[in-house]
Amino acid sequence: MPQAVVLLSGGLDSATTLAIANDRGFQCHALTVDYGQRHRAELNAAARIAKALQAFEHHIFPLDLTVFGGSALTDKTIDVPLAPSTGIPPTYVPARNTIMLSLALAWAETLSSHDIFIGANAVDYSGYPDCRPEYIAAYEKLANLATKATVEGRALSIHAPLIALSKAEIIRRGAALGVNFALTVSCYLASDDGLACGQCDSCRLRRAGFATAGLPDPTCYR
Amino acid sequence: MPQAVVLLSGGLDSATTLAIANDRGFQCHALTVDYGQRHRAELNAAARIAKALQAFEHHIFPLDLTVFGGSALTDKTIDVPLAPSTGIPPTYVPARNTIMLSLALAWAETLSSHDIFIGANAVDYSGYPDCRPEYIAAYEKLANLATKATVEGRALSIHAPLIALSKAEIIRRGAALGVNFALTVSCYLASDDGLACGQCDSCRLRRAGFATAGLPDPTCYR
Repeated sequence: MPQAVVLLSGGLDSATTLAIANDRGFQCHALTVDYGQRHRAELNAAARIAKALQAFEHHIFPLDLTVFGGSALTDKTIDVPLAPSTGIPPTYVPARNTIMLSLALAWAETLSSHDIFIGANAVDYSGYPDCRPEYIAAYEKLANLATKATVEGRALSIHAPLIALSKAEIIRRGAALGVNFALTVSCYLASDDGLACGQCDSCRLRRAGFATAGLPDPTCYR
Repeated sequence: MPQAVVLLSGGLDSATTLAIANDRGFQCHALTVDYGQRHRAELNAAARIAKALQAFEHHIFPLDLTVFGGSALTDKTIDVPLAPSTGIPPTYVPARNTIMLSLALAWAETLSSHDIFIGANAVDYSGYPDCRPEYIAAYEKLANLATKATVEGRALSIHAPLIALSKAEIIRRGAALGVNFALTVSCYLASDDGLACGQCDSCRLRRAGFATAGLPDPTCYR
């Protein structure tokens, strides 16, 4: 059974990605990064999802990005916007996906795994530069130069199966694979017990996704 | 004064790199990653070097790679070889440079810096895949796609000024810039007070470098 490292944030995209990796026959090693995110509830959500989707193992890796700050998610003095904005929003965390993929790469190489999954999406997303297909392609190229992979003649793949799907399509896909979205937390301002604000960018995209998909939204709003 | 993030391990290559970044007129933010390396003495060395070379600030970032292991530097059950070997040696740490560059990228972006320095070298080195020029070029491409840089029309540069130099050339360059190599620690098996084994790959390259450069080797061997 081939092994894969799956980045699992605790939101609905990464939960669906884990279900897809399972469905493709991988033994999944789920990796969650505790980077000091404001919405701590997603860490508990990730643990619940890893268990429900029967990840082979789940590791929560501490890596404190609050020392750099620069984002509404890692610096509590920067507000999370509650209305749509243009450009890259303040919830963007500098180099977050690059750091998380790099940790996944380290783990994959020690496992002799050649497959990494990430739930990046470039359709119904917040405009983060590190969610675009050209970014994922560049990371895959880098990963192959960075590691023993090319030396050993076996290529590493960065799988981003949601990259071109709408939020509604992601939800339909996850539902078809049995993902229990009630376990997931997307809200940037989620309370510690996982209640969502219903107003942030992430809540808006999620709510509209369920509406468009024609599926009941299991999110608990406060 | 432009700002740069400089990766500083505590060895002679990164010390020379910091001196070069200073010489090029950058205000230097030195970043050392405490990844659980066996040779803890290099962390103290990094602090000494940052002070001696007057880095604007120095941050030691904890990020425990021993949880993944897979290297003689992060897993004490794997021996550091004391004789030359072929291929990628067991001291290779999976994805280490990728992780360290990614943290540097996060810091650079929060500082609005567009310049990152790394002391990677592909001449007198241990054959690690993430020290090759093609790897550095791929990382620079990735960094520009990963961040606000391209969106804002200002490119990020990954500087690897030692990439094509021999160890002797690095030592001559550092000496000319006033680096006190007695402060640096290269040995993979350095004792906590920084005494070198004189036998590991890193010690062999360093010792031969001083001999070829015709400069006194200030290393304290045990």
